[in-house]
Amino acid sequence: MKPQWVARSRADLKLSEPGLIHFNSCGASLMPEQVFRAQVDHLKLECAYGGYEAHALAEQNGQGLEYTRSAIARMLNCKSREIALVENATAGWANAFGGVLSTLQEGDRILCCELEYASNLISFLQAAKQKKLRVEVIPSDAAGQTDVDRLRQMMDSSVKLISLTHVATGNGCVNPARQVGELAREFKVPFFLDACQSCGQIDLDVQDLQCDVLTATGRKFLRGPRGTGFLYARDEFAKKMAFPAVVDMRAATVFPTSTNKLITLNSGFEVVLMEGARRFENWENNVAGLVGLGKAVEYAMEIGLPRIEQRVEMLGCCLREALQELDHVVVRDLGAKKCGIVSFSVDSSKKTVHEELVQRLRERYKINTSVSFAMGAILDMHSRNLPSAVRCGMHYFNTEEEVQVFVANLEESIRAVR
Amino acid sequence: MKPQWVARSRADLKLSEPGLIHFNSCGASLMPEQVFRAQVDHLKLECAYGGYEAHALAEQNGQGLEYTRSAIARMLNCKSREIALVENATAGWANAFGGVLSTLQEGDRILCCELEYASNLISFLQAAKQKKLRVEVIPSDAAGQTDVDRLRQMMDSSVKLISLTHVATGNGCVNPARQVGELAREFKVPFFLDACQSCGQIDLDVQDLQCDVLTATGRKFLRGPRGTGFLYARDEFAKKMAFPAVVDMRAATVFPTSTNKLITLNSGFEVVLMEGARRFENWENNVAGLVGLGKAVEYAMEIGLPRIEQRVEMLGCCLREALQELDHVVVRDLGAKKCGIVSFSVDSSKKTVHEELVQRLRERYKINTSVSFAMGAILDMHSRNLPSAVRCGMHYFNTEEEVQVFVANLEESIRAVR
Repeated sequence: MKPQWVARSRADLKLSEPGLIHFNSCGASLMPEQVFRAQVDHLKLECAYGGYEAHALAEQNGQGLEYTRSAIARMLNCKSREIALVENATAGWANAFGGVLSTLQEGDRILCCELEYASNLISFLQAAKQKKLRVEVIPSDAAGQTDVDRLRQMMDSSVKLISLTHVATGNGCVNPARQVGELAREFKVPFFLDACQSCGQIDLDVQDLQCDVLTATGRKFLRGPRGTGFLYARDEFAKKMAFPAVVDMRAATVFPTSTNKLITLNSGFEVVLMEGARRFENWENNVAGLVGLGKAVEYAMEIGLPRIEQRVEMLGCCLREALQELDHVVVRDLGAKKCGIVSFSVDSSKKTVHEELVQRLRERYKINTSVSFAMGAILDMHSRNLPSAVRCGMHYFNTEEEVQVFVANLEESIRAVR
Repeated sequence: MKPQWVARSRADLKLSEPGLIHFNSCGASLMPEQVFRAQVDHLKLECAYGGYEAHALAEQNGQGLEYTRSAIARMLNCKSREIALVENATAGWANAFGGVLSTLQEGDRILCCELEYASNLISFLQAAKQKKLRVEVIPSDAAGQTDVDRLRQMMDSSVKLISLTHVATGNGCVNPARQVGELAREFKVPFFLDACQSCGQIDLDVQDLQCDVLTATGRKFLRGPRGTGFLYARDEFAKKMAFPAVVDMRAATVFPTSTNKLITLNSGFEVVLMEGARRFENWENNVAGLVGLGKAVEYAMEIGLPRIEQRVEMLGCCLREALQELDHVVVRDLGAKKCGIVSFSVDSSKKTVHEELVQRLRERYKINTSVSFAMGAILDMHSRNLPSAVRCGMHYFNTEEEVQVFVANLEESIRAVR
């Protein structure tokens, strides 16, 4: 039942603990050996020649950050100059949001979704307070995904931003990003897509999605290093936006406009933002990690994102189906289209049953899963009255045999901890 | 002439290219082998168990981020909870500045120094524009360092922030941070110290410096990994400040205050910042790099910062003295107290003479130096009419023999490219 290409990718897991079952790619996945090597090789280069010198050598050899940007651009179907390399998806997202925010006025509306990631929500709530904006939630439909018809009804000229979390952090639902993108384009409203949990498990094309900003992280389904992420900013959007939340010497240049030695600086200098997505980057980053990210993106593209998407969806279905047979287990995933994230709760009077289960699975059976708390997707989980859930993030290197082993051990663990 | 401890530290450079002379610790230094190993070991742990699982194991073993925070806290003489781990000094600085900025009103004054790092200046200029603040430069004295008497004259109740760049990016001057800190404390004004170029070459004690915020980077004189940095925020300051520039789910929590399913979010949720410096951190970072940073800090403390400071200052003097003997060379360092950064210009009609020199030194003699451009320290270099300079960053592992080799090869290179 295991295709050849899956067997090959499993061979690239030889650094992993024998017998490990990793169902936590939605937390952080397992890096292929090639990604690990790329990082170590770059760190060695830094030790040999110095950090800046190694970076220059890597760029010369086509193995530096420009290589990473171009690999991401090929994956997303955009230009390299539209890609900013950042520490993580949220840092990129917040910086781009800062650029929109500074143009907003009292009464302007921001629309987000029920599955919105909590960090985005924190930014929205804070912005609403500071600038007297209205932040509104697009209701979900009966299946649990963002309702595009309701969104259409909410649209008018006061809407200045539509934000969608593509795949929720603790729930397998895939939001209808393309349809939202179409609507945003029709109404000429900037559209931010948080693809932190979808990039790497779902084939993404920013032309098709019609988003203006897309953010993603390296460590999850892309199987890249921790502390890496990127932001896509459509050229037309980047040009029009104001100052991002944080701008340093990489993102902008200061020009003197006077020849005098000044004491008061309010005039005398001009700050000009860099072209393209570079205005969202900062001077110093984890170069070895970002080189590894480029390798991870290339690794995914060699397999093919459509092939990955198909297999991950299949494994998700397979796990959900098996879980539905278990006593005391309720599968909690929403949406018409679901992905490799599978969430469930266990009916128990114990408040910490999910934490105990995850711990037992890890310690006794070498199975990695995680607990997602309402805090991370507060709109969704709070309204469903779900303080926590067990979360599995299946990736293409997982197998149906692992699903069987997991389910058997889960049954035993439920009996033990419930 | 080479003390035992220097010989020992040179033995930890065995991954470096034989014959390399690295005078670029002010760009990025050379990591000791121990720092490289700590990173690789953590990356291996991630490959073996998964990124999040490895992180939890590292924390359990006392080799995680808490270990890094506590090493930094010991180095700076503060509490662990006052340390935030960030991607780089500027990211930390900008986030803390955002916290002050949101409390400022039209007409409030910010005082910075002539040696101010350009990224800070960009933040100031942008803030001045948005909020109609006055940004003023504390003049330097005849020696070229921030004039504390002039600062005293500028003080009144409209001053809401004093910012000092401890050591300029392209110039050996050490600003009188302690005296500025004393004054700031006297006037009860927050004092931000950008220690990006001083931390690791100068012994820093935040109680002595009396700063409220201190930011530093891993890759420079601390000899840590790229893409790592930290921010010290005095507890009393962190408590009083408003929202940092970027706040995510690690820095704050969203609590529902209503049980209804809401469409408009302006009420119904409360965002509460985390205690201590954690409010300046973000959810996802380069864990392997930050583990390496902890090792680097410990490595520096084992040698002893006072001993490092003394030797680096000596090597800086030694290089400056030798350079002063050369034709066509003008040493450009300012200040009464100077450090391991040595800057000079070469008198030539060629605009690119500094770039060509640095390139020749690297390619022909394996000597790493760099060019600093006015862009990075625009107030200083623009007013001195200095578009660029050659910059050497000497560290304790450098030797007087290297200085001699450097000077001889520099002479040859000047003849060749001038």
